[in-house]
Amino acid sequence: MNKETLTEPPRRLRAGLVGGGRGAFIGLVHRIAVELDGEARVVAGALSANAEVAHESARAWFLDRSYRSYEEMAKAEKREELGIDFVIIATPNDLHYPVAKAFLSAGIHVVCDKPLALTVSEGEELGRLVEAGKTLLALTHNYTGYPAVREARALVRGGRIGEIRKVLVEYTQDWLMEPLEQAGHKQASWRADPARAGLGGSVGDIGSHAANLLEFVTGRRIEAVCADLTAFVPGRRLDDDANMLLRLEGGAKGTLVCSQIACGEENRLSIRVYGTRAGLE
Amino acid sequence: MNKETLTEPPRRLRAGLVGGGRGAFIGLVHRIAVELDGEARVVAGALSANAEVAHESARAWFLDRSYRSYEEMAKAEKREELGIDFVIIATPNDLHYPVAKAFLSAGIHVVCDKPLALTVSEGEELGRLVEAGKTLLALTHNYTGYPAVREARALVRGGRIGEIRKVLVEYTQDWLMEPLEQAGHKQASWRADPARAGLGGSVGDIGSHAANLLEFVTGRRIEAVCADLTAFVPGRRLDDDANMLLRLEGGAKGTLVCSQIACGEENRLSIRVYGTRAGLE
Amino acid sequence: MNKETLTEPPRRLRAGLVGGGRGAFIGLVHRIAVELDGEARVVAGALSANAEVAHESARAWFLDRSYRSYEEMAKAEKREELGIDFVIIATPNDLHYPVAKAFLSAGIHVVCDKPLALTVSEGEELGRLVEAGKTLLALTHNYTGYPAVREARALVRGGRIGEIRKVLVEYTQDWLMEPLEQAGHKQASWRADPARAGLGGSVGDIGSHAANLLEFVTGRRIEAVCADLTAFVPGRRLDDDANMLLRLEGGAKGTLVCSQIACGEENRLSIRVYGTRAGLE
Amino acid sequence: MNKETLTEPPRRLRAGLVGGGRGAFIGLVHRIAVELDGEARVVAGALSANAEVAHESARAWFLDRSYRSYEEMAKAEKREELGIDFVIIATPNDLHYPVAKAFLSAGIHVVCDKPLALTVSEGEELGRLVEAGKTLLALTHNYTGYPAVREARALVRGGRIGEIRKVLVEYTQDWLMEPLEQAGHKQASWRADPARAGLGGSVGDIGSHAANLLEFVTGRRIEAVCADLTAFVPGRRLDDDANMLLRLEGGAKGTLVCSQIACGEENRLSIRVYGTRAGLE
Repeated sequence: MNKETLTEPPRRLRAGLVGGGRGAFIGLVHRIAVELDGEARVVAGALSANAEVAHESARAWFLDRSYRSYEEMAKAEKREELGIDFVIIATPNDLHYPVAKAFLSAGIHVVCDKPLALTVSEGEELGRLVEAGKTLLALTHNYTGYPAVREARALVRGGRIGEIRKVLVEYTQDWLMEPLEQAGHKQASWRADPARAGLGGSVGDIGSHAANLLEFVTGRRIEAVCADLTAFVPGRRLDDDANMLLRLEGGAKGTLVCSQIACGEENRLSIRVYGTRAGLE
Repeated sequence: MNKETLTEPPRRLRAGLVGGGRGAFIGLVHRIAVELDGEARVVAGALSANAEVAHESARAWFLDRSYRSYEEMAKAEKREELGIDFVIIATPNDLHYPVAKAFLSAGIHVVCDKPLALTVSEGEELGRLVEAGKTLLALTHNYTGYPAVREARALVRGGRIGEIRKVLVEYTQDWLMEPLEQAGHKQASWRADPARAGLGGSVGDIGSHAANLLEFVTGRRIEAVCADLTAFVPGRRLDDDANMLLRLEGGAKGTLVCSQIACGEENRLSIRVYGTRAGLE
Repeated sequence: MNKETLTEPPRRLRAGLVGGGRGAFIGLVHRIAVELDGEARVVAGALSANAEVAHESARAWFLDRSYRSYEEMAKAEKREELGIDFVIIATPNDLHYPVAKAFLSAGIHVVCDKPLALTVSEGEELGRLVEAGKTLLALTHNYTGYPAVREARALVRGGRIGEIRKVLVEYTQDWLMEPLEQAGHKQASWRADPARAGLGGSVGDIGSHAANLLEFVTGRRIEAVCADLTAFVPGRRLDDDANMLLRLEGGAKGTLVCSQIACGEENRLSIRVYGTRAGLE
Repeated sequence: MNKETLTEPPRRLRAGLVGGGRGAFIGLVHRIAVELDGEARVVAGALSANAEVAHESARAWFLDRSYRSYEEMAKAEKREELGIDFVIIATPNDLHYPVAKAFLSAGIHVVCDKPLALTVSEGEELGRLVEAGKTLLALTHNYTGYPAVREARALVRGGRIGEIRKVLVEYTQDWLMEPLEQAGHKQASWRADPARAGLGGSVGDIGSHAANLLEFVTGRRIEAVCADLTAFVPGRRLDDDANMLLRLEGGAKGTLVCSQIACGEENRLSIRVYGTRAGLE
């Protein structure tokens, strides 16, 4: 017999997904990313609060199991013999805390989009659940995965540019130049609603990525911030633009600029780190 | 019961892979590409002529079935109840023809890397097998998949630049600047060997992509070529550099430049199409 | 007789230059700029406080008259039948006021490098002299002369981008990364000395160009500034780096970044103006 | 007396200009270039075949002497006590030879735009005049004056990239996409007329710059050419586009592309030189 039986291989991981149904933005990205190296597969999901959308979306992705709610999914997967190893949370911000809580309580590991929660106390409660259940909770800041970012981090942290003096970080977009949230645009609506997005508009949605990038690459914490937040679009309740002065651990200074009304910018994320010497000869 | 049973979904396609074992270059790219939208999975493979490498690579990718040779794979998959729907051929050039022949003869569809074969008669024989077996045979020129290339094609073929007058196409690299094939480099060795690569060196390996890009974007066939091929690296038997004058259907003219000794170029593929008017206002 | 006598042409203007001797930076630029269109020639100068340098430099430029001091130059040129029409001041900052005063008092027009003076009262005095003497005083902010800047200004002021919301302006250099002023570097020495440069280091030297560019292009005055100035180089008495939050007339906001320790930047001057609509279709 | 008399300085050179009157293209560039360092001044000219244009243009530039023809200018300047030291020829191609001959015969040095002449025998005659008169004749290929070109030449000739293998040189424009010469366009008319431009269209006008750039930077002569010249615009008598295969001294190969119908290109001159090693670490 020439065909080999692959006995007892180290098995693939089984992932679940909450959010990501038809019309969602980031769930698809999570599915592709987690399956890219072949070591995990998304097999179950509660892809939408709308049951029809949820099941139709699950069928389109050939999932093994589709649920009407994340609560049912957490309970069922806990009992399932070949249940999921971990769940990915790709919902609007206000659901991050309750969904994470439900799965951590069921002993299932969690990969959660930023932000972790809407309040500090919610975040601390999740921290206690992780410790109690010996589960893992990963918070995804996706830009840290790019090779260019890893390379920058290695150069900067490895001392190639000497002591850091100045950092300029920016994340600008223009898709919220108009009041899309007042026209029922799904992605805009929850982001512009303090009850669903939290207290930050552009600052929370993309300024957080800029701040994370800065700290990830430099290894320096932001110690002080002087910020000027603006809601330029009439009627908008959360900031759509911000300019900040920064002071970092160790004496470096810089600026953080984020905007969702920067006409002409699609997704401009950049960082410049200036040190006491040139990194490349 | 809240968990829905997903009855009779349209099923995922099952793919096989020949070539692509540890140390290979393009097999991994095929696996990722075919699985990206979730509608197909690679489940079986004959990943290497070396049985140990083949099986180890298959285990690393969690394949269901691993074979020692493509011949056995074609026979076994034909008999398998849930056998593969199609096979991807990602081997050195000289195996494209025999592998394609084996699977087409088994009634299994084929996705084959370029070139189709080493001779015209081999290619014609595959054509007859396709017609006889009502199978599909797809030849992959991967650059046609990029959105930028599709957009260029739509603009040019849609008449946005008027009548085409001049086309400059180029594909330059530098990884064969040194005689890697004389030092046992796996990828260089078969490409520099006329018995395995065919009669073209850089012309076959990457010039073919440039020519395909030109014809894909413009919709015009290359009618005449005046070419200057060179093997710059001492001892090399196939060209590692070429410059060509082109004449296209309809009167346009141009150049095709390809090189694998263009120091400083990693993978520079570009096309410029000049017409009788500016495409963008 | 075929050779035409060019009778009574509108004559060329005669310019003088204070500063700009051998080792100076900006005097040569002024000479080239003023002579470029052929309508003026530099004919006299007090090119250096060092008489030997002054005369040698004047000879190298074929000037008609060379002076040991600006005071003598102002007096002599006033009496000269074909004396200069205007003088260009290209000295360190602390001399701008006294030199301008001397020539305005002699009834000679003045083209002065920025800054106008080191204090407000000096500047106001020059204003009174201009009014009293019916002379002209032009303050050069050289970047306003670039066609690209003029084009940007025409687009923005012409309403092409709608209402201005955000402006990011930057001028960064790295030539003062090391304490050149402590090693006798001529250009660095006066710029790092509050008595000669005034109270601004990088802010005065190049931040002023950035601010000018912003106001020139947008037509909006900067109404409020929150600035973080730093002298990164040990022992330096004036700022070599600054980050600022800006608020403009009409509600726009922005940042101004200037630095002379931004390792890797030679002379990076840029402006981005974001409005309520895209300027180019 | 403090004012120094600048006795006996090494004097400025006096230049003359043939061509360059109102509506001309390159004469102004020559005037600016020759005066830029302050060591020469254009003082006399025969700026146009049209006497009115000639004199008006000379007045606008404050020239000391204006002539109706180059023949008169050569004779008069020869006799003038402070006559010109050299003449710049900035006329259409067909006048290069007779103008250069007139001034060389008068013992006046010549700076001539390329091409030197329309035939080899004309060029050889000028060579004999130079030798006989001990005059200088400089042929301007203006791009050799750019610092970037000088730097490239120093790197390549200094051996930084090892042995040259491949050279790609290009000069593309689009201003002759339409038959401007049939609509009376001054610059297009003489360039499209074999009697005034010579036998080359785009090849002579700009391909010559590309060839010069290649030889200037590499130090290698072009030994063999295979060229495909086209006149794409209906009714045009000279080529407006060319693609060439090149072989250089020493075994290097390459392409030369020039075009005046390359829609979207304003003045794209570029060179790439590939050698046996990377020039920059």
